[in-house]
Amino acid sequence: MTTPTLVKNILNTAYDDIPYSVVEHAKKSIKNWMGVAIGASYHESVEMVLELKKDLQSGEQVSILGRTEKVDLLLGSLINGMSSHIFDFDDTHLDTIHHPSGPVAPVVFALGEHYDFTPKELLRAFILGCEAELRISNAVYPSHYDLGWHITSTTGGFGAAVAAGILLKFNEEQMLNALGLAGTQASGLREMFGTMTKPFHPGKAAQNGLLAALLAKKGFTSSKQVLEAKRGFAATLAPEYDLDRVNENWGTQWELLKNAFKPYACGIVLHPAIDACIKLREFATPENVKEIQVTVNPYVLELTGKKEPKTGLEAKFSIYHSGTIGFLEGDAGEDQYKDQVVLRSDVLKFRSKINPTVDKNLKEDEAIAKVILNNGKEYIVKIEHATGSIAKPMTDNHLNSKFKKLTVPIIGTEMANKLIEHLDSFEELLTLKEIVKLCTEENVLA
Amino acid sequence: MTTPTLVKNILNTAYDDIPYSVVEHAKKSIKNWMGVAIGASYHESVEMVLELKKDLQSGEQVSILGRTEKVDLLLGSLINGMSSHIFDFDDTHLDTIHHPSGPVAPVVFALGEHYDFTPKELLRAFILGCEAELRISNAVYPSHYDLGWHITSTTGGFGAAVAAGILLKFNEEQMLNALGLAGTQASGLREMFGTMTKPFHPGKAAQNGLLAALLAKKGFTSSKQVLEAKRGFAATLAPEYDLDRVNENWGTQWELLKNAFKPYACGIVLHPAIDACIKLREFATPENVKEIQVTVNPYVLELTGKKEPKTGLEAKFSIYHSGTIGFLEGDAGEDQYKDQVVLRSDVLKFRSKINPTVDKNLKEDEAIAKVILNNGKEYIVKIEHATGSIAKPMTDNHLNSKFKKLTVPIIGTEMANKLIEHLDSFEELLTLKEIVKLCTEENVLA
Repeated sequence: MTTPTLVKNILNTAYDDIPYSVVEHAKKSIKNWMGVAIGASYHESVEMVLELKKDLQSGEQVSILGRTEKVDLLLGSLINGMSSHIFDFDDTHLDTIHHPSGPVAPVVFALGEHYDFTPKELLRAFILGCEAELRISNAVYPSHYDLGWHITSTTGGFGAAVAAGILLKFNEEQMLNALGLAGTQASGLREMFGTMTKPFHPGKAAQNGLLAALLAKKGFTSSKQVLEAKRGFAATLAPEYDLDRVNENWGTQWELLKNAFKPYACGIVLHPAIDACIKLREFATPENVKEIQVTVNPYVLELTGKKEPKTGLEAKFSIYHSGTIGFLEGDAGEDQYKDQVVLRSDVLKFRSKINPTVDKNLKEDEAIAKVILNNGKEYIVKIEHATGSIAKPMTDNHLNSKFKKLTVPIIGTEMANKLIEHLDSFEELLTLKEIVKLCTEENVLA
Repeated sequence: MTTPTLVKNILNTAYDDIPYSVVEHAKKSIKNWMGVAIGASYHESVEMVLELKKDLQSGEQVSILGRTEKVDLLLGSLINGMSSHIFDFDDTHLDTIHHPSGPVAPVVFALGEHYDFTPKELLRAFILGCEAELRISNAVYPSHYDLGWHITSTTGGFGAAVAAGILLKFNEEQMLNALGLAGTQASGLREMFGTMTKPFHPGKAAQNGLLAALLAKKGFTSSKQVLEAKRGFAATLAPEYDLDRVNENWGTQWELLKNAFKPYACGIVLHPAIDACIKLREFATPENVKEIQVTVNPYVLELTGKKEPKTGLEAKFSIYHSGTIGFLEGDAGEDQYKDQVVLRSDVLKFRSKINPTVDKNLKEDEAIAKVILNNGKEYIVKIEHATGSIAKPMTDNHLNSKFKKLTVPIIGTEMANKLIEHLDSFEELLTLKEIVKLCTEENVLA
C-alpha cells in the first residue's frame, strides 16, 4: 500500500530525524527559489495574474515576493510559484527534470506568512513536501514525462499538499485525503512549453495542493490509495511505473540532496559549453580571437543548434549565443538572454567565431573548448562536470551572486544582503515574516 | 487543426443560429441543474468548502444557490458545480456518461450574476460551452474514460472556458489561449468515485475553466492547438481518439439534445427496473404481494446486486432496495435513498420479496417485472425504454415535480413555483439576478 506507507513515513519523520546536510540543502533551495521568484516578479505574466486580485476582490493574506501587493492564500501560492519558474532558472532534480521548490515553497511561504510556525516546522514541511513529490516523480519517470506530462506540475501538487499538511498538523487520515485530492487535480501538459502557461504549472500545482490540504483539514473525504489504485494516479498518468521507488530507503536516502541549482539561465545541456567558454577568458580577449571551437555531445548540439537567434528565448537554445556571452561577459544569467543583448552588434559579430562540433565520446555534462588566436596560438580547456551539477555544485558565493543579480534591481543591495543573511540562518529566525518583509512592503524599490 | 476550427465554429455561432429545440433543451438542463444544486446545498461537503470563504477572506460576488452566503467568482463556481453533482442526480449525455451542466452552468451563473448579460447571451454561452465539452468527450470516449479519467471533469473545463469566453466576448486568439489553459488543467480521476471528491470534480472543472478564461482575457499565452498537438490533451489523456468528432456536423447536429435527465437518484442502469416496479402498483398493494420477479440485462445485476445495503449510498447500487421503494413509494428520488429509509422496517421486510433474474436478450434500458400475489394471481409489465432516456424523456410535469421535491424544503413552494416560471421563460428575463434571488438571500428558509 504505497500511499498509506508514504503517509506513515512522512508523519513519522520529525525535524530531528532529518540530517543537517539535508536541512542545509533545503535552505539553499529556498534561497535559490526566492531569488528567481523575486527576479521575475515584474514579468508581464505576473502582472496579468495579479490583476485577478481585483477581479476576485481577493483577501490580503500573503505577499507577492518582490512586490508590495498582498493577495489571498491560494492566489499567492499561484503567483509565487509561477514567478519562480518564469526564467527557467530554478532548481532541478536531475534524475527526473523535476523542479521541486516551485510547487512546495509557495505553500510554505503562504501558510508561514499568514499563520505562525517555527522556522524548523517550515523547514520540515518544505523538506518532506519535496521528498514526497520527488519520490513520486522517481516512480513514474520517464514514461510519464515522455507521454506528455510536465512532471513538476503533476507530482508537484502532492508535494504542496504534504507541506501544507505538515504545517496544519494532519493525522494519517487527513494526509491520505489531502493526497487523494492533490492527485485528482494532477495536471499540466508539456505542450504548453514555450508559452506563459509553462511557469503557470508549478504555481497551479502549489495552489491545488494547498486547496487539497485546506479541504482535508475540514474532513473532506477522498481516495486513500491515490497512487496505487487500479485507476489511481500512476495507472492513469504513466504507461510504466515502479511504485516501490516511493518509499524505498526512506530516511536514509534523500532525494532533495540531488537537487541542483542552475548557474546559467538556459537549459542544463548548454552549461558545460558555457563553463568552457568562460574559462577561455583566462587566455584570450575578444579582439585577439580568431575562432572558438566547442566540442560537445551530439545531443547537446541537436537541442541548441540555433545559429541566428532573434530573441532571448531563442538564444537559450543557441550554443552560438551562449558561448559568445560566456566568453564576452563571463556569465550567462537572465541579463545575458535579454532580447537587446541577443541583438547587440558585438555579440552578433562574435557569434560567427563560435564553431561547435560534436564528439559522441563526450558525456552530456562534458565539453571541450579550444581558442585559436589571431597570432596562431591555441589554448584548450576541458570541462569534466558542468558547474551546478551534483559532482560540481555551485559554491555558496556563486549562489549568492546569482541571488543578488536577480534581486538587487528589485530590492536593492542592502535588502538583498540582509535576505541572504537571514536565509542562511533560517532555522534561527523567529518568524517567516522577518524574511518576507525584506523583499516586500516598503522594501521594494519599484 | 481541430482547436482553431472549433474556435471558429464557436465564435461564428450566433444565438439566432441555434435551433429553438436546442434552446428549449438548454432551459430544461439549467432547470434540472439548479434543482439538484439547490437540493444538495446543505450537504456536509458543501459546508466544508464554504468554510474556505473565511479561510481565504473571499470577496462576495456570487451567490451559493439555495443559501444566503456569497463568495468570489472562482469559489462560487467550485461550490455550485460541486453541489449539483452530490446526489448523482444531474443530467447525463448518455453517449459519453458526461454530465454537461455541472462544469458549465456555474460559470454562466457566476459571470451572469456578477456582471450584466442578456438572457440570450447567457443561453448562448451555456449551449456552446456544453457543445464544446460534449464534442471533445465524443472524441476521446471510451478509451479516456476506461483509462481512469472522470470525463465530466476533464473535458468539462473546456466547456467552462468556452462559456466564459463567450460572455467575455473573446476573439479567436483569446479563445484559443483559454482552451489551452483549460486543457492543461484537465484532471479528475475515477478512483475518487464513492468519496466527496467525485462531486468536487465538476466544480473544479468549472473553476479551472473560468480561471483559464479570466487569464486569457488579459493576454496570457498558451498552446493554440491543445486538442491535437503531439503532446496535447488527446494524445496525453486518451489511448485512442478521433478528433474529427469535435467539429463534424457543427451547427446541424447538437449534442445537447442528447442530454438526458434522471427521474431517479441512482445509476441509470437501475431506472427501467424501477419504472417496472412503479408500474406494478396498478395491480397490487404491498400486503398482497408474495414476490416480485424483476428481469434485467446481466450487466445491470452485476452493478446493482447489493442484497443488504446499509446506507443510502449503498442502496443506490441495490436493485433490491430500488425495486422495493419503487413499489412502496412510487418514486426513487433522493428521499428514498436516505439512510433512515434504507433501514426502515417495512422496506427491509419487502426487500426479500424482490427476486431479480437476468436475461441477456434484454437491453440495458429494458426491464420486465412480474408480481405474484398471495392469491396466486400474476401480473406482468415490460419497460421498453426507461423514463428519462432519449426515447422516453421525462415530461415537463415530471421534471417540475423533481425540481420541487429538491427545492421546496429549502426555499418553500412559492419560490420553487416562481423559479420554475422564470426558468421556463428564461430568454424573456431582464437579468439573471431575478432568478438567482429567488433561491438565495432572504428567500432561503433554512
